[in-house]
Amino acid sequence: MPGRGLFITFEGIDGSGKSTQARLLAEGLREAGRDVVLTREPGGSPGAEEIRRLVLEGDPDRWSAETEILLFTAARRDHLERTIDPALKAGKVVICDRFADSTRMYQGLSRGDLRPVVDQLHALMIGREPDLTILIDMDPEIGLSRAKGRRGTEERFEDFGLELQQKMRAGFLSLADEFAPRFRVIDGARAMDAVAAEIRATVDRALA
Amino acid sequence: MPGRGLFITFEGIDGSGKSTQARLLAEGLREAGRDVVLTREPGGSPGAEEIRRLVLEGDPDRWSAETEILLFTAARRDHLERTIDPALKAGKVVICDRFADSTRMYQGLSRGDLRPVVDQLHALMIGREPDLTILIDMDPEIGLSRAKGRRGTEERFEDFGLELQQKMRAGFLSLADEFAPRFRVIDGARAMDAVAAEIRATVDRALA
Ligand SMILES: Nc1ncnc2c1ncn2[C@@H]1O[C@H](COP(=O)(O)OP(=O)(O)OP(=O)(O)O)[C@@H](O)[C@H]1O
Ligand SMILES: Nc1ncnc2c1ncn2[C@@H]1O[C@H](COP(=O)(O)OP(=O)(O)OP(=O)(O)O)[C@@H](O)[C@H]1O
Ligand SMILES: [Mg+2]
Ligand SMILES: [Mg+2]
Repeated sequence: MPGRGLFITFEGIDGSGKSTQARLLAEGLREAGRDVVLTREPGGSPGAEEIRRLVLEGDPDRWSAETEILLFTAARRDHLERTIDPALKAGKVVICDRFADSTRMYQGLSRGDLRPVVDQLHALMIGREPDLTILIDMDPEIGLSRAKGRRGTEERFEDFGLELQQKMRAGFLSLADEFAPRFRVIDGARAMDAVAAEIRATVDRALA
Repeated sequence: MPGRGLFITFEGIDGSGKSTQARLLAEGLREAGRDVVLTREPGGSPGAEEIRRLVLEGDPDRWSAETEILLFTAARRDHLERTIDPALKAGKVVICDRFADSTRMYQGLSRGDLRPVVDQLHALMIGREPDLTILIDMDPEIGLSRAKGRRGTEERFEDFGLELQQKMRAGFLSLADEFAPRFRVIDGARAMDAVAAEIRATVDRALA
């Protein structure tokens, strides 16, 4: 019988290092002999990717906030059924780059009044919460300057702006309070390896 | 200020005359000076049509029953927001060829255990029930023989079969019991005009 799987998610503002750290953690655990599935949202399964394309293509006003929440919940359900749950059942470690907390955070910023709808939909159709959520926290100016090092991202950051990143940071920290037992807030303003080592130690404790 | 709108849905087994009677009712009410919007499910708005295409294209096992319910609820939400609700708010009569009762009926046949999920999703994201639901009831053999008169439908009926149509009929009749106040069961085994006249009288009473 396979061992119990572990479901780990990464959250944090843009450019905070989620994808980098998720990859480093996956590599490290694999080296230690663990079966690891590295996945991400939005997306994570072919069906979820198609739903996402449908949501994002065309006029931005094409879908109401409510219809969008339904479509994203459908995508998450597909991701859960096809990718996450089978891996957990097989005793693997699933590492997911963003998950439901990202939805909660974004919804809080744009349509906070819909949070009860988001929560009820989650309870009804998703159900699953991560065992462990790594929140990579930092001053948004750091994430911003890192992202500027990447080609093609400057424009995006001009769209979104520092103020919005600050609101996102606050939103994530407030979720870390709300769901304290599964959240670990990691200082991401350090060198990549230092951040990776702290995350790995945290995960090893959870696996033990 | 516009008068109160009225939301009328047509339900019934395949070939029972829903589309015919919905059209006749719309024509009759328009002649009587009423503003009427005639719409249908699945579909009824451009967004809903696109979601439907996504659900139906490709491998039939592509989506789980739960993901499909979420996608269809997203389509219905879009149809409601873009087509049905604005018309009702403007005091129009909305006639819809199939609506949520069709979902309930099909779900009852294929995955009856999901009925609570269907109901909770409906309560959370749709909310609206018709003011009046016309159930065109008849022995499925009659619908079957009518449909055989239409080109290209025989194959479909071979797929589905008389037994399934009988289960659908029973499913609709049981919904008519469950939601008795808004349901009117109309004998559809008569000439088109006789059926239309009874439906019209029923609707006129509701409008009065
Ligand atoms: N600790 C670090 N120190 C310096 N640079 C880093 C560090 N971690 C990641 N980076 C760099 O910062 C940039 C953003 O990292 P990454 O793509 O992992 O962030 P992210 O949180 O996944 O971003 P997004 O929200 O856009 O998906 C990359 O160029 C990455 O190489
Ligand atoms: N009262 C009637 N008597 C005889 N034929 C009828 C009657 N009503 C409808 N028909 C014919 O029966 C066929 C099916 O009618 P219609 O398409 O309106 O049914 P429907 O319930 O919308 O079917 P579907 O479930 O396939 O959408 C059509 O060819 C139509 O012209
Ligand atoms: Mg990333
Ligand atoms: Mg029809």
